[in-house]
Amino acid sequence: MDVKNLSKDLERISTETMADIVELRLREFFKKKSFKPGDALPKEMELVAALGVSRNVVREALSRLRMLGMIETRKKRGMLLARPDILGTFERVLDPLIIDEHILQDLFELRLVLEMGLADLLFLRKTDKDIAELEKIALNESHDGVKKFRVKNEIAFHGKLYEMTGNDTLKRFQVMLLPVFGYVTTMEKGEYKVGKTTHLDLVNILKTGTKEDFKAGMYAHLLPHFETLNKK
Amino acid sequence: MDVKNLSKDLERISTETMADIVELRLREFFKKKSFKPGDALPKEMELVAALGVSRNVVREALSRLRMLGMIETRKKRGMLLARPDILGTFERVLDPLIIDEHILQDLFELRLVLEMGLADLLFLRKTDKDIAELEKIALNESHDGVKKFRVKNEIAFHGKLYEMTGNDTLKRFQVMLLPVFGYVTTMEKGEYKVGKTTHLDLVNILKTGTKEDFKAGMYAHLLPHFETLNKK
Repeated sequence: MDVKNLSKDLERISTETMADIVELRLREFFKKKSFKPGDALPKEMELVAALGVSRNVVREALSRLRMLGMIETRKKRGMLLARPDILGTFERVLDPLIIDEHILQDLFELRLVLEMGLADLLFLRKTDKDIAELEKIALNESHDGVKKFRVKNEIAFHGKLYEMTGNDTLKRFQVMLLPVFGYVTTMEKGEYKVGKTTHLDLVNILKTGTKEDFKAGMYAHLLPHFETLNKK
Repeated sequence: MDVKNLSKDLERISTETMADIVELRLREFFKKKSFKPGDALPKEMELVAALGVSRNVVREALSRLRMLGMIETRKKRGMLLARPDILGTFERVLDPLIIDEHILQDLFELRLVLEMGLADLLFLRKTDKDIAELEKIALNESHDGVKKFRVKNEIAFHGKLYEMTGNDTLKRFQVMLLPVFGYVTTMEKGEYKVGKTTHLDLVNILKTGTKEDFKAGMYAHLLPHFETLNKK
């Protein structure tokens, strides 16, 4: 197939399709050759020659992989296989304004699942220092009912809980899901209902209670949200 | 700045940088104009004129957004803002072979958090039909100790649990995390220890037990993994 001649006539579509194919071909090549992060990759022109496609097509495919963080270019060392920032790419498309409402709902539930599942890691890794910091956050909350401050309280308190699990990915994931959570909460009409168990109650459970107490407490804290799900 | 002249001298780097800028500029433009999925976007040449950059730069930025599923091109309707497949992009970079080992460990823990947090959604939405199907899966498991079959049992049983939550995103997320889970399990040296609570025990708890029983049962089932974390 004479790709160059064809792309003169059908440039736009042909380029996209070829870039898709080249992207996939390169991924397979990296796996087949067992490339590890840090390994040098063939030069652009070598790929062009081996694949028998235009330089532009190879460039587009490489650009995509670079955008995903899978490859990087270093001075004098050329192109290397890199460790992609797996959450970074997720973040690029996680915009509540353009996500399907059904998926927003799914992500909202996902956040509830994470909050409920945190307890085991939390009790494995909590320190007195962390609990003291969490208590400080809970004590400094303003309860004037202004929505802006309520959301701020939520973010500070629950963010700290994620941090206490010692799992950076989980923490970043939570930060990423915050806009989604805010968006869904806004959609719920009427007065914002607060669970019977407060942030300060949860701090006290962390101090003297058991993991099971904490799970029950977190459920009571999130109960208004679970009741919303119940109605659906 | 004369972008075209500059890119003759510094073609490669300049193109990437400009594409980054254009990508960001377009994202901001979509938000500022409150574009909704399905809305028609300006034509490529209009963007070229408005941004004052080369056509290639605009094309690269558009190609990235298309790759992320944020825009799509339809016959006769031109470019539209689309609903991105948020998990699809995540999946493209979630390859255990190139992910940082530290992040692999984080994702392994994330999976444990999800399993432990599932109970509330599960008890909200479980049906007799689902439990019967889950029981069938548990009864059909082969216990000959061959690792291949054990992993298969795990995937079938836990996959069904995620499915029973009625949350498609959660289910897809779990499927995506499976290779990570397999990878981490493989790294753990020595005999694979099975928790005291079996899949069939969990089925029976779903039939007659409480949510709290299920949480305790799932913890006992996953205990060997939590014990591994304890040692770290």
